[in-house]
Amino acid sequence: MESKAINDLSDKDIICTAAVAWGPGQPLTIQQIRVQPPQKMEVRIKILFTSVCHTDLSSWQGLNVSQRVYPRIFGHEASGVVESVGEGVEDMKEGDHVLTIFNGECGECVYCKSKITNLCERFRVDPLQSVMRNDGKTRFLTQDGKPIYHFLNTSTFTEYTVVDSACVVKIDPKAPLDKMTLLSCCLSTGFGAVTNTANIHQGSTVAVFGLGAVGLAVIQGAKTRGASKIIGVDINVDKSIKGESMGMTDFINPRDFKTSVHEKIREMSEGGVDFSFECAGNLDVLREAFLSTHDGWGLTVVLGIHPTPRMLPLHPMELFDGRRITGSVFGGFKAKTQLPLFAHHCMHHQEGLKLEEFITHELPFSSIDQAFQLLINGKSLRCLLHL
Amino acid sequence: MESKAINDLSDKDIICTAAVAWGPGQPLTIQQIRVQPPQKMEVRIKILFTSVCHTDLSSWQGLNVSQRVYPRIFGHEASGVVESVGEGVEDMKEGDHVLTIFNGECGECVYCKSKITNLCERFRVDPLQSVMRNDGKTRFLTQDGKPIYHFLNTSTFTEYTVVDSACVVKIDPKAPLDKMTLLSCCLSTGFGAVTNTANIHQGSTVAVFGLGAVGLAVIQGAKTRGASKIIGVDINVDKSIKGESMGMTDFINPRDFKTSVHEKIREMSEGGVDFSFECAGNLDVLREAFLSTHDGWGLTVVLGIHPTPRMLPLHPMELFDGRRITGSVFGGFKAKTQLPLFAHHCMHHQEGLKLEEFITHELPFSSIDQAFQLLINGKSLRCLLHL
Repeated sequence: MESKAINDLSDKDIICTAAVAWGPGQPLTIQQIRVQPPQKMEVRIKILFTSVCHTDLSSWQGLNVSQRVYPRIFGHEASGVVESVGEGVEDMKEGDHVLTIFNGECGECVYCKSKITNLCERFRVDPLQSVMRNDGKTRFLTQDGKPIYHFLNTSTFTEYTVVDSACVVKIDPKAPLDKMTLLSCCLSTGFGAVTNTANIHQGSTVAVFGLGAVGLAVIQGAKTRGASKIIGVDINVDKSIKGESMGMTDFINPRDFKTSVHEKIREMSEGGVDFSFECAGNLDVLREAFLSTHDGWGLTVVLGIHPTPRMLPLHPMELFDGRRITGSVFGGFKAKTQLPLFAHHCMHHQEGLKLEEFITHELPFSSIDQAFQLLINGKSLRCLLHL
Repeated sequence: MESKAINDLSDKDIICTAAVAWGPGQPLTIQQIRVQPPQKMEVRIKILFTSVCHTDLSSWQGLNVSQRVYPRIFGHEASGVVESVGEGVEDMKEGDHVLTIFNGECGECVYCKSKITNLCERFRVDPLQSVMRNDGKTRFLTQDGKPIYHFLNTSTFTEYTVVDSACVVKIDPKAPLDKMTLLSCCLSTGFGAVTNTANIHQGSTVAVFGLGAVGLAVIQGAKTRGASKIIGVDINVDKSIKGESMGMTDFINPRDFKTSVHEKIREMSEGGVDFSFECAGNLDVLREAFLSTHDGWGLTVVLGIHPTPRMLPLHPMELFDGRRITGSVFGGFKAKTQLPLFAHHCMHHQEGLKLEEFITHELPFSSIDQAFQLLINGKSLRCLLHL
């Protein structure tokens, strides 16, 4: 055993910089905060890279009133290095390279033991959860000791964060951490929706609604599986170039047609695609995605977040046409069990997966407001923030 | 080749008795009609047994205005003997014992060739179809030559009917035709929803909403597959006795509880059942059925007919809890391919399947109005009409 270094901070608060949200839509405050030591089965991580996802955006805007809790540290797609671990953590140690995971895996509950679901009983994604599960308290404090709340099991817009070990995945230290950040959310979500949830096969036909980072990851997954047709749908024409470079075979801008998108797609695919993926978070789009699949066997996978109070715009009798619909969380990946292998795969097939094409911008952490603005304006896929 | 008998009617109209509907909810008229010979790939059947199903009831009442077409011959659950076959029919001949099938199988279309669906391109169930597909005309005429419309590919409330050969299944002549009538609709629909659509496994937990003939067939299917818990739900307490005799392990009358049914079921089944079956045709019941399954892997199979204009009462974000929902038509059976074996199974395991318990009443065909009334009053499961 090494003797404890003089500058070891594992049982002390760390003072560091974070981007704190104080109210819905208010500019984030870059300020000093205190990050407490990890408790039992928790891990404190030095964040090296993080990026902004639409889920951060809509939560920051406070679109869902019931989820408004402030002050709060957003951010969930990140990579970093373990600073210290709490009691009982045996699968990680100081210095390990890790990804934060908003949809954790305890490995012991009835859900983790089931082969069907990746929703852990305790650590599944939960936008209402804002404190640590151990004690119902936060590990973030203002300099004068007031709590700052957690977000999506992760909170990565800070130099240091504390998360449950169920929500951390250790990856190969030789993997490029900057690009691996994408596996923490968008890439796994989109790619896994194709390979785990839909489990498409060679020759399948696919339509992808919404070509943000998740939609493009769907395209990458479909290409990897040998889909024969990959139709991308977006009202932002700029997305078509990116889509094509990822493997999209056809592009539809709904504004170019008077007929509905699903009619156009049925024309292009002998009655409908085998699989559609809704990555737009819009219910009218969801209905088009549903109707664009082939009756008898089509499957629509919902990935978009729908903050609307509206119910599903599908009639019960439409289920008898044999079209199916299902949700997919974190691409169906059981994070701790399956992500290390996926990371290995991504690391050794980077060219095929074109990870670098997802990172359209890189900025210092202090420019986080600019990263938000790029996403709002549809200019960025992922803006990687360096800490 | 036998010489043609003098009384052979195969190329002539047959005058016979039928129960004709002349308007929504109007008492059926027992009258003489003309039944034309079968055309290419059609079969003329002498009906021996038929029964009344809720689909006949709601169509007779004209609940869905767009489906109102009169005069019309309802009825779709029936068995009989082939009287004659049209040109090209090679898998059946005069005298064969057959069942009518509202969800046909041509065997040649892209759907019939798919392993996933049992919705034939041309002969799938279609409540808007009221004429023969060969020529867009009816084979039923009034005595003065006016058309009487067809219903659900079958029209069995008549001594003779003409159906496409895709909608007729030949069964073992030793099988008891009276009981086999049930395979023409309710038994196959409920049993197949469990064994084909849901494909439940030994030890699965199941909830069945609505204990009519279809719901009871679901119970039978679940029992056959070795379900560990089979919860029946109905507001008609009389159904509990029948349910128990079929294999139901628990009964819930929603009126006995102040809490919702899904909360009660979750209590009884460690967080929810693996599979729920909606056989009530009511959207509030459908929502309870959906929520009564276990999050992460629960599957709700919709069997009920929903004539309401209301959309599915499910929020898109509820799909992320991992509960799934799907429709099932004719229990997922490909009729011509799979039903003969199912009939064989039913014939040799009648005790286990308790077919006789579904037939609660038997009446002469002329008492068809009484059979409707028994169903309306919730007094009968199936009233078998003898022709």
